[in-house]
Amino acid sequence: MTTSIPDPWAAWRERRPPARLVHLDSASAGRSSYAVLEAVGDHLLREAEVGGYVAAEQAAPALARARTDLGRLLGLGADDLAFVESATAALDVVLDVWPLPAGARVGVPPSAWGPNVELVRRRGHRPVALPVDGAGVLTPDLLDAALGTDPPDLVLLDLVAAHRGLVQPARELAAVARRHGVPLWVDVAQGLGHVGADTGADAVVATSRKWLTGPRGVGLVGVAAAHHERLRVPARAKHPGTGPVALLESDEAHVAGRIGLGVAAAELLAVGPTAVAARLAEVGRELRDRLAEVPGWRVVAPDAPAGAITAVAPTAGQDPARARADLLDAGVLTTLCLPWRAPGEMSVDDPGSLRVSPHVDVTSEDLDALVRGLAATGG
Amino acid sequence: MTTSIPDPWAAWRERRPPARLVHLDSASAGRSSYAVLEAVGDHLLREAEVGGYVAAEQAAPALARARTDLGRLLGLGADDLAFVESATAALDVVLDVWPLPAGARVGVPPSAWGPNVELVRRRGHRPVALPVDGAGVLTPDLLDAALGTDPPDLVLLDLVAAHRGLVQPARELAAVARRHGVPLWVDVAQGLGHVGADTGADAVVATSRKWLTGPRGVGLVGVAAAHHERLRVPARAKHPGTGPVALLESDEAHVAGRIGLGVAAAELLAVGPTAVAARLAEVGRELRDRLAEVPGWRVVAPDAPAGAITAVAPTAGQDPARARADLLDAGVLTTLCLPWRAPGEMSVDDPGSLRVSPHVDVTSEDLDALVRGLAATGG
Repeated sequence: MTTSIPDPWAAWRERRPPARLVHLDSASAGRSSYAVLEAVGDHLLREAEVGGYVAAEQAAPALARARTDLGRLLGLGADDLAFVESATAALDVVLDVWPLPAGARVGVPPSAWGPNVELVRRRGHRPVALPVDGAGVLTPDLLDAALGTDPPDLVLLDLVAAHRGLVQPARELAAVARRHGVPLWVDVAQGLGHVGADTGADAVVATSRKWLTGPRGVGLVGVAAAHHERLRVPARAKHPGTGPVALLESDEAHVAGRIGLGVAAAELLAVGPTAVAARLAEVGRELRDRLAEVPGWRVVAPDAPAGAITAVAPTAGQDPARARADLLDAGVLTTLCLPWRAPGEMSVDDPGSLRVSPHVDVTSEDLDALVRGLAATGG
Repeated sequence: MTTSIPDPWAAWRERRPPARLVHLDSASAGRSSYAVLEAVGDHLLREAEVGGYVAAEQAAPALARARTDLGRLLGLGADDLAFVESATAALDVVLDVWPLPAGARVGVPPSAWGPNVELVRRRGHRPVALPVDGAGVLTPDLLDAALGTDPPDLVLLDLVAAHRGLVQPARELAAVARRHGVPLWVDVAQGLGHVGADTGADAVVATSRKWLTGPRGVGLVGVAAAHHERLRVPARAKHPGTGPVALLESDEAHVAGRIGLGVAAAELLAVGPTAVAARLAEVGRELRDRLAEVPGWRVVAPDAPAGAITAVAPTAGQDPARARADLLDAGVLTTLCLPWRAPGEMSVDDPGSLRVSPHVDVTSEDLDALVRGLAATGG
């Protein structure tokens, strides 16, 4: 990144509307491409011309292709996937239809996404903490030991944490859980389009708008084929002949957004998810190297396995909310991370941190602007 | 309708992309205007330029105006409303936060929207049938008697039924329920932008995409101010200082669609919701008059109080699914109504009916095409 950005990442940027700020916030919402925006706009126009449901029927091939492409990224088949409105809605759907006992014990690592844990509780289940190593990683050995002594009814983890750099070894963990006969679900909201997302999990929940840079208002639920018959899906006369996972798909939906997500998934497959993941790992390393030298800030858990997401915490008493606002005034977009994002790791009196999440097209000039802005707040 | 269509309804049509078929399906999804489509497209572009969350912050005034305008249509304040993803999601949210006892008895008329009743059951409550008159109307007297003898914990009704012509006297019913101290919720999904929707209900759920002709993927939950303090809303540090209903608003959202809905609401207010309701009542009457003369079909419950939604059932053994497909081949869009839409009124062996739901801009030529197409299937 000391030189000008290499291909194909300049092309990645050129396929998008020009950024009006230094966008280091892909973990909130990535920047969609012109092709995605056009696909959404075209479908909205079509809805107005022929009606929303006729337009959706006409788009059935595009939607099927989208499920196939997303399945390729997730190691699932098209029939294993259903579109819903968000990753949260997706988790709610799986909680509804999976045959969990009432008051199920749901094992989560301390880094678990707070709103997921809240939803598990709201649905009458009990989150229980799983052991992790010093970096917050749920290692296969630790999971093996936990499932061997006091297994929960279910394991729920995030492939990539939302509040700092942390990638869980989800594929290995899914293998361990399978050996113990404990279902394991993975929230890949921060992982899909960021790191390898073929986890072999029993169920996955995902969102469109982050690293995939698809539209907002679209989520994805996936259930591995081995579990389709276990799902408590109401047999609705509404969709005779469709499979159990297809029945989870919502009808009152932002269909245009689903089509846009399909375009984003196809774009990722064209560039290559492995190349993107490698680039984002490189981006994260460079980012942490640069941030390590900024006075008044420390990188949170710099040695944890990570992709591009990086958090910095103040060491000189600055208010992160103010720092985030100052950075934005200086044209640099980051995220304020307050404890609700990961209450298992951040205490309620934690002043918070700043999350930085650049995409593949970040330039050294972008990072210069970040470092300059942060240093100004740290004085 | 025997003459050419009067102003301002031609203008209503001209503000939209030209229909590529005879669109008689507003009860599924209305046709959005160019202004709505442009507002959505502009926001999507802005999201790509500055990030989804900065774009949403910049759009806060437009979103506030949208809540205010929708509140005017519903007889609620802007602070009483929250955007969610659909009317179903809205109902789920209210079920989550309203202080209902476990296993609450929820009174519903037989015409109740099937998926709502299913959701009530899924959340552990018990739907119980409320008495109605011969047309399916829950009259104020019948409700008064029911609440006086064996009151449920809650009344849930649809302002306008989805499967046939039926408008409930929601405003009078809300007054009766209030007198008995029983909360009454109204699903206005088929009512907002169609009939008067200021019901005085304790809670309402709504959708954007039908009579309001806003985008798909946007719903609305409303809770009257008197109940805000009763809501069991988790106090999330995420949104310090926002009111209890604002906390129900989803963050992972199709924000562009919400902005589009705001434009649609403003358009309705500009034309006048009373004028639209009067026009749709006239459209419904003319439609039922025309349909009464079609051989092989009968209008379902022709004497029930109704707006523009009308259903016809076969009297000569035709398959309504086939009839719907034949009509669509002839360029006329209607909806197939199967029993899942209103299982309290339609038995599982009901072959179904065709729903016809024109908007204000329907022409006599459109109805000619419908009658011609239906007669061809009834021979």
